[in-house]
Amino acid sequence: MSGDHGPAIIVPSALQVLAEHPDLHLILVGDKSVLEEMLRSQQAQENTRLTIHHASQVVEMSELPSHALRFKKDSSMRVAINLVKAGEAQACVSAGNTGALMATARYVLKTLPGIDRPAIITALPTIQGHDTHVLDLGANVDASPEHLFQFAVMGSVLAQAVHNLPNPKVGLLNIGQEEIKGIEKVKEAGRLLSNSALINYAGFVEGDGIFSGNVDVVVCDGFVGNIALKTTEGVAHMISHYVKQSFNRTVFTRLAALIALPVIKRLREQIDPRRYNGASLLGLRGIVIKSHGSADTLSFAYAIREAILEVQKNVPMRISEQLEKMLLTPEKRQVG
Amino acid sequence: MSGDHGPAIIVPSALQVLAEHPDLHLILVGDKSVLEEMLRSQQAQENTRLTIHHASQVVEMSELPSHALRFKKDSSMRVAINLVKAGEAQACVSAGNTGALMATARYVLKTLPGIDRPAIITALPTIQGHDTHVLDLGANVDASPEHLFQFAVMGSVLAQAVHNLPNPKVGLLNIGQEEIKGIEKVKEAGRLLSNSALINYAGFVEGDGIFSGNVDVVVCDGFVGNIALKTTEGVAHMISHYVKQSFNRTVFTRLAALIALPVIKRLREQIDPRRYNGASLLGLRGIVIKSHGSADTLSFAYAIREAILEVQKNVPMRISEQLEKMLLTPEKRQVG
Repeated sequence: MSGDHGPAIIVPSALQVLAEHPDLHLILVGDKSVLEEMLRSQQAQENTRLTIHHASQVVEMSELPSHALRFKKDSSMRVAINLVKAGEAQACVSAGNTGALMATARYVLKTLPGIDRPAIITALPTIQGHDTHVLDLGANVDASPEHLFQFAVMGSVLAQAVHNLPNPKVGLLNIGQEEIKGIEKVKEAGRLLSNSALINYAGFVEGDGIFSGNVDVVVCDGFVGNIALKTTEGVAHMISHYVKQSFNRTVFTRLAALIALPVIKRLREQIDPRRYNGASLLGLRGIVIKSHGSADTLSFAYAIREAILEVQKNVPMRISEQLEKMLLTPEKRQVG
Repeated sequence: MSGDHGPAIIVPSALQVLAEHPDLHLILVGDKSVLEEMLRSQQAQENTRLTIHHASQVVEMSELPSHALRFKKDSSMRVAINLVKAGEAQACVSAGNTGALMATARYVLKTLPGIDRPAIITALPTIQGHDTHVLDLGANVDASPEHLFQFAVMGSVLAQAVHNLPNPKVGLLNIGQEEIKGIEKVKEAGRLLSNSALINYAGFVEGDGIFSGNVDVVVCDGFVGNIALKTTEGVAHMISHYVKQSFNRTVFTRLAALIALPVIKRLREQIDPRRYNGASLLGLRGIVIKSHGSADTLSFAYAIREAILEVQKNVPMRISEQLEKMLLTPEKRQVG
């Protein structure tokens, strides 16, 4: 029910992904009459793989997480997460208030053993073609070295299990690549990661390292990660604005645009931000995917697809297994 | 002598800016024989507005600032800053090791009264056409609310004095725009700025706010600022890579590129990162400009031009005046 556009984009998006996946069953959680009306308007009221689960409330986009937790016990968000907890759904996808989603998911589902705090992760494109995975993107405004270590474990598992990277390289976001640089907690996290035999730790990366493709997972606290993500969106938006403006200026430039259209279209497909929609709330005993609030139909479909992949690969269980292995594996021996 | 390319780009760049500014006098600081040879190869040994000041050492790009301070007392960087201190030069421009430049400048020149820590500031393009100014970009990996307040004062002065923005709007970089969001020190800095009558404080901005043009100055600590800056460079580089690749793919796309060339060229001019080279070390009793280490001739010229502007506008004195005014001005009265 939430996000900037609510069911108007979520329902058509759900129908699209249902058509792609013949085994998929989707539950639309929210105001029954609104959702039924939406399905009628899309001629989809007869789809047996699509059910409606009524929820009477909606968490507002600017609502405090604590307020949502306390007063929105029948919100679409809360009810959807309850369904995951009860085993009636295998994942929850929401375009709603990030803080409330995280707080509710954490409260209802709890964190996995060995995980102190869940983290938000997303994929971003790189210059080498394959994606990179960045976490935390805002769940933890501060994070201790141990938290950063746990983020590294979770990010590695996601990159490996869902995105088929056999031995994902993990970098720590810092302001220099040398070991002496940066802030203490990042340096300490670097020492923890260097000593772990189960993480393919590649050292510090700077902001541009997110897009270089030299590492597969970039770890940082939620304050820095959120600023890096929003900065990325801001730069991309600005460049796209100037590209449009330049091609729109005169008759000649509009003609040039027409000729360049197939090139621009292919380019858009390669680095279309909508393809990267669907951030995972990792570290929970259940799968929760956060879509961008402003997602359109195409974009929200990517978030649903991410949920399907994580269900197929059983990401929470894999994170647990990896953490258990770490407890049983001796630390890497220091050589030299 | 330093930077990735040393005198090979700095000397031609100096000659170019000298030709533009008939009143300018430049002092090349570094190895005399190397510099003389460079000038000879450029047929410029006779230019009376260009002198050489010998320095026998060079600070390496990866050298520890403390090491440079202690053992490189005759480095080109140290000698250039000494010339500013002695009043023989009005500004120093360097493409060298940022940490060593900041440590040396701070040690030799000292900070202005009322400034605890200098900060690094640069201009970045926005969607609205005018630039935004972001600080700190890495001088202070952590900063207290009071430091962030001082950065706001310094950033305002630079935006106003050098870049002709009459009443620059100042935003604090945070992970949400609501007052309740973010980390404690940023919220406290927000309270300090809200209470100051001499700062046009516009509240919190997120990472994309750097490029929206809604504020003229964005304030953050050096860790976050550096990551935002490097992220910006990374995204821009990646997009430019994919643009080139897309236009280079087939005969048809190369033809499209040829037709689109004037558009792309104009676009490059609008948001060419080289135009934004030349970060200022603000808060010192003297003007020091840091060029990107990998700057080319065109790019380094922008750093020299920034130095000229700051000399003309006497930025350090204006920062001092503004701080003094603040001490004399009562806090804003809370209304309502």
